[in-house]
Amino acid sequence: MPRKIVIIGCGAAGVSAASAARKTDRSAEITVLNDERYAAYSRCGIPYVIEGEIPSFESLVIYPAQYYSMMKINLHTDTAVTDIDPSAKTVKAIDKGGKEQNFNYDSLIIATGASALVIPVLGSNLPGVYAVRTLDDGRKILEAAKGAKSAIVIGARLVGLETAVALRKHGLDVTVIELLPQILDGILDPELAKEIQEKLEGAGIRFILGTGISEIVGKDHVEAARAGPHEIKADLVVMATGVRARTDLAKKMGLAMGETKLIKIDERMETNIKGVYAAGDCVECVSAITGKPTVSQLGTNAVRQGKVAGVNAAGGSMVYPKILGSCITRILGTEIASTGLTETYAKKQGIECVSATAEADARPPYYPEKVPVRVKLVANSADGKLIGAQVISIKEAGPRIDTISAAMMKGATVEDFILYDHAYCPPVADVVEPVSVVAELVARKLIRKK
Amino acid sequence: MPRKIVIIGCGAAGVSAASAARKTDRSAEITVLNDERYAAYSRCGIPYVIEGEIPSFESLVIYPAQYYSMMKINLHTDTAVTDIDPSAKTVKAIDKGGKEQNFNYDSLIIATGASALVIPVLGSNLPGVYAVRTLDDGRKILEAAKGAKSAIVIGARLVGLETAVALRKHGLDVTVIELLPQILDGILDPELAKEIQEKLEGAGIRFILGTGISEIVGKDHVEAARAGPHEIKADLVVMATGVRARTDLAKKMGLAMGETKLIKIDERMETNIKGVYAAGDCVECVSAITGKPTVSQLGTNAVRQGKVAGVNAAGGSMVYPKILGSCITRILGTEIASTGLTETYAKKQGIECVSATAEADARPPYYPEKVPVRVKLVANSADGKLIGAQVISIKEAGPRIDTISAAMMKGATVEDFILYDHAYCPPVADVVEPVSVVAELVARKLIRKK
Repeated sequence: MPRKIVIIGCGAAGVSAASAARKTDRSAEITVLNDERYAAYSRCGIPYVIEGEIPSFESLVIYPAQYYSMMKINLHTDTAVTDIDPSAKTVKAIDKGGKEQNFNYDSLIIATGASALVIPVLGSNLPGVYAVRTLDDGRKILEAAKGAKSAIVIGARLVGLETAVALRKHGLDVTVIELLPQILDGILDPELAKEIQEKLEGAGIRFILGTGISEIVGKDHVEAARAGPHEIKADLVVMATGVRARTDLAKKMGLAMGETKLIKIDERMETNIKGVYAAGDCVECVSAITGKPTVSQLGTNAVRQGKVAGVNAAGGSMVYPKILGSCITRILGTEIASTGLTETYAKKQGIECVSATAEADARPPYYPEKVPVRVKLVANSADGKLIGAQVISIKEAGPRIDTISAAMMKGATVEDFILYDHAYCPPVADVVEPVSVVAELVARKLIRKK
Repeated sequence: MPRKIVIIGCGAAGVSAASAARKTDRSAEITVLNDERYAAYSRCGIPYVIEGEIPSFESLVIYPAQYYSMMKINLHTDTAVTDIDPSAKTVKAIDKGGKEQNFNYDSLIIATGASALVIPVLGSNLPGVYAVRTLDDGRKILEAAKGAKSAIVIGARLVGLETAVALRKHGLDVTVIELLPQILDGILDPELAKEIQEKLEGAGIRFILGTGISEIVGKDHVEAARAGPHEIKADLVVMATGVRARTDLAKKMGLAMGETKLIKIDERMETNIKGVYAAGDCVECVSAITGKPTVSQLGTNAVRQGKVAGVNAAGGSMVYPKILGSCITRILGTEIASTGLTETYAKKQGIECVSATAEADARPPYYPEKVPVRVKLVANSADGKLIGAQVISIKEAGPRIDTISAAMMKGATVEDFILYDHAYCPPVADVVEPVSVVAELVARKLIRKK
């Protein structure tokens, strides 16, 4: 009898799980139940379609229908799971025509993801208020932008800023409202965040920080929003205020939640119920730095977790490592990348640390192209181990963060980076790497501290 | 009494040693004796000046004279050391005016580097035969190229190929002659080297491989060169056949040589004579992969070794790690980067290994820009540890090699790279990193082998 694997959700985690399961067990019956119309598309691409950098929303759909048939994955779209019975190992689902169906499983993977968190202030349900989560959200925002003069974006993390820039490119007056006192909280420390804010302000984007939205004003459509003493007129409001994990089904079937209130999984992505796995935005991660549970709802995590869940659900064996939460964005031609903990967050966690920030050029002084790279490294004072890094540059910020991240996963110290064996050649790198320059600054501070 | 530090040579290692010594001991008397006219210039930049990508040879000189005065480094250019007396701790030198001078030292750093290795075939001293080592070499080649129709480059490693491309850009017919059966030996394995060769052939460069040069023909100027059955006409011949460490002074003063016949140093860059350090192209390295002595005459090594020697010579404490030999070049818009051992070389060393090669795009399929990245990973069959990597791409090959290199220094396995925590965002990276794709292929082969 072939193994029956049911996967609930076909976002990044779900499709990754299905593909990995198929590669692990060629004969398994794999069923994926997706309550959206579109399966497995890139949510991270949505702001870039709005901006015009990616040609269409349809192009964000990663696999054509043939992929699923080729991989023998039974994909049911527009199909919502209504109930799971873990003792009978059955899943009950209903399609958009109202037809109910039952699916048996040997292994179950919960990849229900997350939905946009819309702050429920007065007026938040007015026409002209949008989330940035689904392809349809993207379409609506782009449509609304075409006739609009001004917009408010609520939330100043990655998606918020990417969307603000996209709307600004359409010529709108854009105001970003953020409850926290800085943009990119958790990604950049305040002094670097301030630099990016100024860059965005230079492009005409206004910021109201440290102030939550209190009301969205309008009769039958958005007209303005109130935040603290401010009332800002706007033709549309985008809520980029994060996501909320979809854990209702998981809770209902008896899965244990972690202290972050997301699904608790072990390193094999298995939940407290044997044979039931979970992956993606609905699960709790473990920080490689603190060893503690953490929330890290990134597409990369989802893909990797999906793979591990898929392999294990199909009888293979794979372990999901603790996470660093490496991320990157590009706004206005500047790459902003980060891994591990910011200094601010590390200190909040009670970790004594030292940091240094410097800018160095990634090309030799005699080379015509200039690639200034701003690097901040944060190290644990106790052992000199790197616990976080932030890189801002016009290019190659991502690969630099990847370098630091790959070494951090192996316990690298700042010392390791002072003399690390990097590849140099005038058109592509300087003989001294910017990361090494900053590593040396941190190392000196560590010595002084001892 | 201030500490007296004498440094012989002011190339990459010498100047790095001087700077590090100054930063370590603010009051030391630091003297640098350099037998060239120019101090501390980028040899790696020479082919790119010939090509026209870097504006001038003068620009390759890294520090202006003020740097040395600001750092209180007594730089003597055009000054050749003739003798060292390690018991009296004195160095005898002669400047170009014939004036002899003695310098006392507490610490001595030998940074005599290497000189171009010109193969002593018949005709190798004819006018029109050039090395690619000094600024003057570069100037002569550029001058000669202007009036020439054809050129031969002997040697098909980094400098040889960079120079061949530079001469081709000047419109010359270019033939590259290489004794070994492949180009980029030790940097790429044959199958990848072949791809690069074809790319260069596509640009009109001809190759004669597996054949040494036997004679350079000409009356009072180069007219042709003979290699095996071939006689190729040429207006100039460039010898890019590697370098020979300058160890005469070191031998004469009694420094021990390693099995590679370069100066043997410990991890503090100290030689067998206490207080005498050595750094740069004249010293022997230790491979991080094999743990054995190796030759790795790279600018990056020289800078790092110089730093370690300078710190220790000035009373500080720093350790030079074993090396991976990471390197990169860019030719015809393609970056070729490598670290650790090639599969070919690993097997020659008796290391049982597995490898995989694949091409994946570093951008998502829906993103308009395409960045195909070709990656080869080599892992030790015994423990799955990465022992080498090769990356070819239009961009970001260097940072990818740096990522692998940084992790390899911490003992990373292919497993570590399957799920490594990389930063993703549509305009700059795909959700699955090409290095991870190849790591997974290698991991599967490792499992099959067990």
